[in-house]
Amino acid sequence: MDTNDLLQQVAFIKEIDKLKYIQRRTKLFYSDRHENDAEHSWHLAMMTLVLAGHSDKQIDVLKVLKMVLIHDLVEIDAGDTFIYDSSKNHTNTEEERLAANRIFGLLPEIQAQEFIAIWEEFEQGSTDEAKFAKTMDRFEPLLQNSSNNGGTWAEFNVDYDTVYNKKKVIENGSASIWSYAKLVLDESVEKGILRKKTPPETTS
Amino acid sequence: MDTNDLLQQVAFIKEIDKLKYIQRRTKLFYSDRHENDAEHSWHLAMMTLVLAGHSDKQIDVLKVLKMVLIHDLVEIDAGDTFIYDSSKNHTNTEEERLAANRIFGLLPEIQAQEFIAIWEEFEQGSTDEAKFAKTMDRFEPLLQNSSNNGGTWAEFNVDYDTVYNKKKVIENGSASIWSYAKLVLDESVEKGILRKKTPPETTS
Repeated sequence: MDTNDLLQQVAFIKEIDKLKYIQRRTKLFYSDRHENDAEHSWHLAMMTLVLAGHSDKQIDVLKVLKMVLIHDLVEIDAGDTFIYDSSKNHTNTEEERLAANRIFGLLPEIQAQEFIAIWEEFEQGSTDEAKFAKTMDRFEPLLQNSSNNGGTWAEFNVDYDTVYNKKKVIENGSASIWSYAKLVLDESVEKGILRKKTPPETTS
Repeated sequence: MDTNDLLQQVAFIKEIDKLKYIQRRTKLFYSDRHENDAEHSWHLAMMTLVLAGHSDKQIDVLKVLKMVLIHDLVEIDAGDTFIYDSSKNHTNTEEERLAANRIFGLLPEIQAQEFIAIWEEFEQGSTDEAKFAKTMDRFEPLLQNSSNNGGTWAEFNVDYDTVYNKKKVIENGSASIWSYAKLVLDESVEKGILRKKTPPETTS
């Protein structure tokens, strides 16, 4: 690595500070304060370190860490996409691809290519590492919402079936975490913080 | 990993959310907003991924990531220690050791022992991984302060020699990053945001 590489890397390090300003819909545990993307990414990295043994497949933990640490950087340009927002498809929008090219493009060429490839692998979700990274990404807000009287489920009136279908991705990375997640969802219904059925439509 | 392990791990995952409330003295880049320890830990992890090639020694990047992700967790109990606070010695206080035992002790025994050992290795700073992790920990606030009109250097009236001596730790992990860091310090003096000499004491 030469001095020119370092100057490019420092420019990238300064640019990604902006992730700390991207607010998520979910809130901290037992809290009213919204989480930001940098905090979320740190938490997923910690969860990866702690929960990797629950992966159903042998995984490269370093690669999963890279995925969860960088997975939301595109939101610096493209903004946070709320998982229960039906009007916007989260997966690999053109806006996010442009963001990846701009932000990772600040790095020396070889590193830029490596990070873009890791981000794309995460987005596609096909490899064992990407599946486990997505397990982490779905599991954290489930724990947060269940600790916050339903959190975004209650705030945006999302029902059990919708949550279940979104969270089912957890199963692709870990059968044991998915078993636990289903218990948390069932408990949330019992506590009345997650609505089991869609209420009948009101007719005027 | 069994169900009981997972319950302990979830308790740990919830507990460490508190890191997001621990405010540092330093502020975000070009900003008036204080950084918290979770954001700081995420940023050090990103810097590790990007800058590992500048390490003077061959390092286990996964181990460095573990160090920087967990290095401040003890501050959940012990609070943030400001590097230029001369009244408190940061290194391995008894309070921090108790905190490590309590917080990592929430995990299954084998994981608790592994994390405590990694935290201690970081604190001791003897291995190549610990040296590089400390390089990251000293380099981030240097970049922040130089982007913030001197930041904590100006706010707490710290002079060049004091900053230089604290930052010299960077050299133990990377000669090239230390060369760059010295340039940034020199530029900060030239810009008038880092005071070169101790002013003569006023006598009454």
